[in-house]
Amino acid sequence: MTTSDNKKKIRIFDTTLRDGEQTPGVTVSPDQKLEIAMKLDELGVDTIEAGFPVVSPGEVEAIKKIIKQGLKAEVCGLARTTQNDIDIAIKSDLKYIHTFIATSDIHLKYKLKMTREQVLEKAIYAVEYAKKHGLVVEFSAEDATRSDIQFLNKIFKSVAEAGADRIDIPDTVGYSTPQYISKLVTGVAEVTGLPVSVHCHNDFGLAVANSIAGFQAGAACAHVTINGLGERAGNAALEELVMACQCLYQIPHNIKTEQLYDVSKFVSSAMGIIVQPNKAIIGENAFGHESGIHTHGIINNPLTYEPISPELVGRKRWMQAGKHAGAHGIKAILDEFGITSSDLQLKEIVEKQKLIADSGKSITTSDLLSIASEVLKNKKFDENFKLNDFHIVTGLHIIPTAVVKLNIHGKDFIASETGVGPVDSALKAIQTIAHGIANIKIREYKLDSITGGSDALAEVSVKVEDKEGNIISARKSGADIVVASVQAMIDAINTTMLKKMIQNGEPTK
Amino acid sequence: MTTSDNKKKIRIFDTTLRDGEQTPGVTVSPDQKLEIAMKLDELGVDTIEAGFPVVSPGEVEAIKKIIKQGLKAEVCGLARTTQNDIDIAIKSDLKYIHTFIATSDIHLKYKLKMTREQVLEKAIYAVEYAKKHGLVVEFSAEDATRSDIQFLNKIFKSVAEAGADRIDIPDTVGYSTPQYISKLVTGVAEVTGLPVSVHCHNDFGLAVANSIAGFQAGAACAHVTINGLGERAGNAALEELVMACQCLYQIPHNIKTEQLYDVSKFVSSAMGIIVQPNKAIIGENAFGHESGIHTHGIINNPLTYEPISPELVGRKRWMQAGKHAGAHGIKAILDEFGITSSDLQLKEIVEKQKLIADSGKSITTSDLLSIASEVLKNKKFDENFKLNDFHIVTGLHIIPTAVVKLNIHGKDFIASETGVGPVDSALKAIQTIAHGIANIKIREYKLDSITGGSDALAEVSVKVEDKEGNIISARKSGADIVVASVQAMIDAINTTMLKKMIQNGEPTK
Repeated sequence: MTTSDNKKKIRIFDTTLRDGEQTPGVTVSPDQKLEIAMKLDELGVDTIEAGFPVVSPGEVEAIKKIIKQGLKAEVCGLARTTQNDIDIAIKSDLKYIHTFIATSDIHLKYKLKMTREQVLEKAIYAVEYAKKHGLVVEFSAEDATRSDIQFLNKIFKSVAEAGADRIDIPDTVGYSTPQYISKLVTGVAEVTGLPVSVHCHNDFGLAVANSIAGFQAGAACAHVTINGLGERAGNAALEELVMACQCLYQIPHNIKTEQLYDVSKFVSSAMGIIVQPNKAIIGENAFGHESGIHTHGIINNPLTYEPISPELVGRKRWMQAGKHAGAHGIKAILDEFGITSSDLQLKEIVEKQKLIADSGKSITTSDLLSIASEVLKNKKFDENFKLNDFHIVTGLHIIPTAVVKLNIHGKDFIASETGVGPVDSALKAIQTIAHGIANIKIREYKLDSITGGSDALAEVSVKVEDKEGNIISARKSGADIVVASVQAMIDAINTTMLKKMIQNGEPTK
Repeated sequence: MTTSDNKKKIRIFDTTLRDGEQTPGVTVSPDQKLEIAMKLDELGVDTIEAGFPVVSPGEVEAIKKIIKQGLKAEVCGLARTTQNDIDIAIKSDLKYIHTFIATSDIHLKYKLKMTREQVLEKAIYAVEYAKKHGLVVEFSAEDATRSDIQFLNKIFKSVAEAGADRIDIPDTVGYSTPQYISKLVTGVAEVTGLPVSVHCHNDFGLAVANSIAGFQAGAACAHVTINGLGERAGNAALEELVMACQCLYQIPHNIKTEQLYDVSKFVSSAMGIIVQPNKAIIGENAFGHESGIHTHGIINNPLTYEPISPELVGRKRWMQAGKHAGAHGIKAILDEFGITSSDLQLKEIVEKQKLIADSGKSITTSDLLSIASEVLKNKKFDENFKLNDFHIVTGLHIIPTAVVKLNIHGKDFIASETGVGPVDSALKAIQTIAHGIANIKIREYKLDSITGGSDALAEVSVKVEDKEGNIISARKSGADIVVASVQAMIDAINTTMLKKMIQNGEPTK
């Protein structure tokens, strides 16, 4: 692949806590901000943009807490080019500000209602004021990519002369092409002699490509967010940009890539913004395989169908049954359970699961095991835990309560639990029984989003873990979220127990 | 922005039904495949890759159904370079096949266990066989971007001589850079003289940039999927690529862009793969605004903070309250409800909602109205529907049932309903009361995915519609899915009734 000429280590300016938090509907408390900042610091980002102090008193509090923590990363805060914004930044204990004013004609005319001369004057004033107060100053010309390039270079040159330390080129509405970013970076570096950052939005899916073009043209730094969070379609995703730099362009950086998945999950959960399964690097499917051709290759050498090893970003690969799975993939899954079959039996198992898949249903490992049990006429794959009965109640002023009755190897077990909601109480009740009998704990619960009516199908997946560290997941879909959750949990437990039996050397065939 | 030299209309080869369906866990029935194909045809795609016939009997059935429909788009099917795969394609009534064999050394060594000479021979044999049977043939060298470039050009030249009609360059594991795709396309076009397609995967977030680089180097066509579905991180997203071509590169195409959002939602729902809010073009937030600076600009001229008009892709913009919202944004939302306030009152409303947001809570329109009601001391914004009581039961062998007690202007109403699940029954009961009193119906119910434990917060949003066509949405989050759903529904009803009062000319201040 292409190799960049520029082998200097790039800097990662993470703005998850500022641009990321501006994702509509997202707000995090000061304590959550601190937690995220600490994760980002551990991850190895060079700069944390902790917030926009003027926005609210909570924002000031969060920034102070983060600064007090004494992180390795630089901590930066956003300020408009006004004395008030900069004063509040100073009161937030910030030593490094990112100050901005728009430079495009559309912003000047419709938002700022200022002339180019007034904008220039205000920018210089703010940079001088901030420098007078001893701050490190990164200056952004908002909407740079839609600004007149002569004016843009003039303002950048002027703020550099006024003492700015760094220059940022924001592609505010994600409207730039890699070619144009490259042109801007080259020009700005020449005119100012300062380190240049690029700040790319993803409105056309080009944020990562634009950031890379910036680095290739000599930019020292890119503004990014975890999971590509941010206004509208978000900012360049840290995880994609860093991995592309490392793997495709051999550009060095300070990120500990094996922490990427954990940090992504943490931020997604704290900010309440889900990551789609088909998201690069950190999506659930990024290292998942179903199709027969792919699983066949993966089994022989994972690099046939994976660009990088999943461990490099803190992940594990997984394979699953389904319509596109071929004999090689199905055999690999059965192998994991120590289940051997003749070629003819394997063919029958593959065909049976394709028949189910053709009806539009997705197939879990436990579905596959029950097909295998049928084909191999082996009772051992049968369910260990049988759900005999359960009911739940919840409502206003009612503590959600579940009663579950399970039959395990012919013996009945009943448990009742309360929880924060109906699903929580039902799964707790099952767990109470399972933990006593088989030492199985729930590790993750996932409910896929439902759109449509309140009668739409929900898909639930549950991951359980036994005391040997075996992790098994099961999925169920149904119109009743509670019932689907309970069934997925029972499925996962049964699959785990089967795996345990096999590990204990109990014959399965 | 940059303008491409190549102004020929590009072709869009949609593989949502083939590569998209290979997304792990996704299976659609033959009837669903037909429905999706018809949507794609209406959207204006040039080619529909309907499936991989050899995979299952359902796949053959689906392809036959799609061909029988007589769509405007070409219909294509995938086949390995084997006689059996091509024969099944022919039996599926296909007139156009996409046949492939891997060409990279890693695939030859670990998957195919063949020499380059054997691969070459097999490729030529398959193309000749397919041409002898009168098929249009597009030939793909799987893992082209990791193949030896001399061998790659040799095999492409040979299949062209054997009669192939089109050549495809797949970046199978998403490992290419725009620069390298450009080099490959130029070389292949020169060597074969045939129309070239690019097929880019998104493992490093570069699928769109790579596809554009292909077009700029002279490719005639790109393989894409709706929502960027596909194995692992998926394929280049149709909606992103088409809009980038149109808006940033002025490259013409046949897609009716105003249908993009509807098709995206249809496919997401049929395949059960969610789209994240911060997804370009079709994510929920792509045209949503919260921050004060952005909403201020948007109100004066939407193009200040939007790269394109949302209507261009079949969408509408929305604004919301929140920590980052400033006075301009809040005033715009209140204006919609005919609520006027003095500057001082507006300032108080903005501060109060920021205070709530600082605690980490997101703010809905109905939250904002209740703050406004408090500040303006106007009872009219108070809740019309008050939830006094509700409870639900569900379980195994139990029909989910809800009882709801509402107080409306001092009078109690009770309703009991059954449904397919606890949420469905509860919302039905509320709807029974609301429909009688205020003619309000539920239009959409949405539950955001939950990952974490079974005690994680769920976020629910409900859209309701009154008989005048006013549509109002409300969101609630909570650990109990049922309680959050009920509260969101009540919120939405109250907001709708307030809007109706304003439209009827009842004074609100």
